[in-house]
Amino acid sequence: MAPSVPVSPLAPTATPAMPTIAGLRFAAGEAGIRYKGRTDVTVAVLPEGTAVAGVFTRSRCPSAPVDWCRANLGGGRARLLVVNSGNANAFTGRTGVASTRLTAEIAGRASGATAAEIFLASTGVIGEPLDASRFEGVLDRLVAEAREDGIAEAARAIMTTDTFPKLATATADIGGVPVTINGIAKGAGMIAPDMATMLSFVFTDAPIAAPALQALLSRGVEASFNCITVDSDTSTSDTLMLFATGGAAERGAPAIADPADPRLAGFAAALDGLLLDLAHLVVKDGEGARKFVSVRVEGAESDASAKRIALSIANSPLVKTAVAGEDANWGRVVAAVGKAGEAADRDRLAIWFGPIRVAAEGLRDPAYDEAATSSYMRGQDIDIRVDIGLGSGRATVWTCDLTKLYVEINGDYRS
Amino acid sequence: MAPSVPVSPLAPTATPAMPTIAGLRFAAGEAGIRYKGRTDVTVAVLPEGTAVAGVFTRSRCPSAPVDWCRANLGGGRARLLVVNSGNANAFTGRTGVASTRLTAEIAGRASGATAAEIFLASTGVIGEPLDASRFEGVLDRLVAEAREDGIAEAARAIMTTDTFPKLATATADIGGVPVTINGIAKGAGMIAPDMATMLSFVFTDAPIAAPALQALLSRGVEASFNCITVDSDTSTSDTLMLFATGGAAERGAPAIADPADPRLAGFAAALDGLLLDLAHLVVKDGEGARKFVSVRVEGAESDASAKRIALSIANSPLVKTAVAGEDANWGRVVAAVGKAGEAADRDRLAIWFGPIRVAAEGLRDPAYDEAATSSYMRGQDIDIRVDIGLGSGRATVWTCDLTKLYVEINGDYRS
Repeated sequence: MAPSVPVSPLAPTATPAMPTIAGLRFAAGEAGIRYKGRTDVTVAVLPEGTAVAGVFTRSRCPSAPVDWCRANLGGGRARLLVVNSGNANAFTGRTGVASTRLTAEIAGRASGATAAEIFLASTGVIGEPLDASRFEGVLDRLVAEAREDGIAEAARAIMTTDTFPKLATATADIGGVPVTINGIAKGAGMIAPDMATMLSFVFTDAPIAAPALQALLSRGVEASFNCITVDSDTSTSDTLMLFATGGAAERGAPAIADPADPRLAGFAAALDGLLLDLAHLVVKDGEGARKFVSVRVEGAESDASAKRIALSIANSPLVKTAVAGEDANWGRVVAAVGKAGEAADRDRLAIWFGPIRVAAEGLRDPAYDEAATSSYMRGQDIDIRVDIGLGSGRATVWTCDLTKLYVEINGDYRS
Repeated sequence: MAPSVPVSPLAPTATPAMPTIAGLRFAAGEAGIRYKGRTDVTVAVLPEGTAVAGVFTRSRCPSAPVDWCRANLGGGRARLLVVNSGNANAFTGRTGVASTRLTAEIAGRASGATAAEIFLASTGVIGEPLDASRFEGVLDRLVAEAREDGIAEAARAIMTTDTFPKLATATADIGGVPVTINGIAKGAGMIAPDMATMLSFVFTDAPIAAPALQALLSRGVEASFNCITVDSDTSTSDTLMLFATGGAAERGAPAIADPADPRLAGFAAALDGLLLDLAHLVVKDGEGARKFVSVRVEGAESDASAKRIALSIANSPLVKTAVAGEDANWGRVVAAVGKAGEAADRDRLAIWFGPIRVAAEGLRDPAYDEAATSSYMRGQDIDIRVDIGLGSGRATVWTCDLTKLYVEINGDYRS
């Protein structure tokens, strides 16, 4: 049924070597959630005292695990993360709530964690009851087997229709002590009847308290995961969590509770960079993607206005098919600016594809060179820049092109 | 470059026989706007005293002809409509304004109309200067040759990448006197580097003054052209105009100036029906369309909320590719409801595909029958219905499926 999808041509050529974080262990195994003989459950065992932060889908119809995690965030502590694929436990009503409870019970017996310290994420088919009893006998084994060097396996295990695992690592300095930040993500691969979901989990040994961690994550997501779009569709299950074990305190890193503490500046910058890396990897594995597109809007009335215009361009099927066709179709960019509903004056617009200004002052650039532009459009990375010419608001978002493979992957074509 | 696109499988099997309207004449010809030897200019010659109304694209970057028409609407009178294809005269700056002026000058000399009585529409490439001098010697000939039975030719002449001409006719009764309403449209066919545009022109012999005509049109467009979407992209040039010659007054129809006049009820209903017919034809010729999809949302907090949810479903690439794949993927419908940003409670949602309820109370319907649903999805007309379960707001919108042919048509694939 599903087409055989080759590894994205935008996949990175090398996977980063991931340092370990003391006491943080990973394992993956099979629980037979939807299919037999397939890795479908992953755990991250977190050392005592781990602080947690999270951001979740803005969907008004979130999955049961998203509700579960949101409710637990208030406690600020995490001991175990359980991720399953095969079933999203979304749109499952009261059964879904019962499934999250049963999963947490089994996970609690396996790890000694309280229900409030257990975090859950599910991805897979929507609307099917999740039989959580299948975790019985599996989670205890995984908790026992989990290894500090297991993050690469975890990154692979949470994949569904992703064509490559997504990992990123960074280091930062807190009070003169180096700390590590490791992140993994799964992206926007969707195959009927499965529903894709963006999941990302980030781990650090920095000793940062939960409220400060939440502030850093909420800020960091704005310019990274909240600035990517594959097809404008939001999952019921999108989840991004940040866990801080605090282990670096043993090496002398100061414990930090105030998000405004200046000693967090380096960590915040490293975290922002890592979130952006992971977000870009998700776009580079967008269904059918052949080109990585950045859309930068400047000169808008405000940053918020610039972002809405940039998303209007990045979500335009006509812009995305033009990029797929290697066509510098700036008329479609003008149309996408026009439909964004934000202040714009067609006679002040300027548009660039890469270094080439194709239009200025509401007209095709007199120096426009068709051959040079076509050559640029044949590249893999396409930068579209628009100057609205009205103010100083700016924003950048990232997307991929829209190809026939996207339709094939998502269309199933049962007939 | 452009793929050869077959006639849409959703095209009507027969074209309606169009009655004539006294004094209203049409002609089409060649002005060599972009290519030689191609019909690219159409005129409608309107009898003296014709009232006019119009609605236009909401784009913040409208074309020069849209600006021209908006400015002229205040006069309320029309003598000549000039439509050209090949060049949209959009994003052409001051040159574009000069082109509309020159077109109107030539049209005025050809017809005797004043500039304020001339209406213009352009479709085609965006960002290229329109050489209006090419209309010289063409418009006067077309005005002279125009015939009352020319509307079918006009419907064909305004096509760009449409695969079939779009015509509709209706009759109504005003004060006991029958009146005719005739409409034509061109739709959402887009081929790089051309930019498509929805154009529609409706003509009646009813004696209705311009302000009342505008009220009828503005109301009628809400439930028709404003409820269709092919790919969520808005053109810089979308134009819908309604011309009333008043000729039926000679047969005793009362002249009506008040939009609230109860004698207009039948006319308003007939106009609404005709606008809906034309809007449906545009969807049925959407690029690559193989299925005609209606999305009905009820039980929302308000009608406006219902419409936003319905458009979120109708614009979702995942819903549209699922329909193309004949997959009753209601999980994607749930996701599209969730991302609309409107009030929704996943545990109250119910979803139908045609007569089959697939989900209720936040769960898959226990009586769900996969075989019956698959059989329904193989049909050409797909009705998706969602009950939000919160209030009494309702709306229906129409769209088509998203197929590989859409990507092919719009992707150009120069490489």
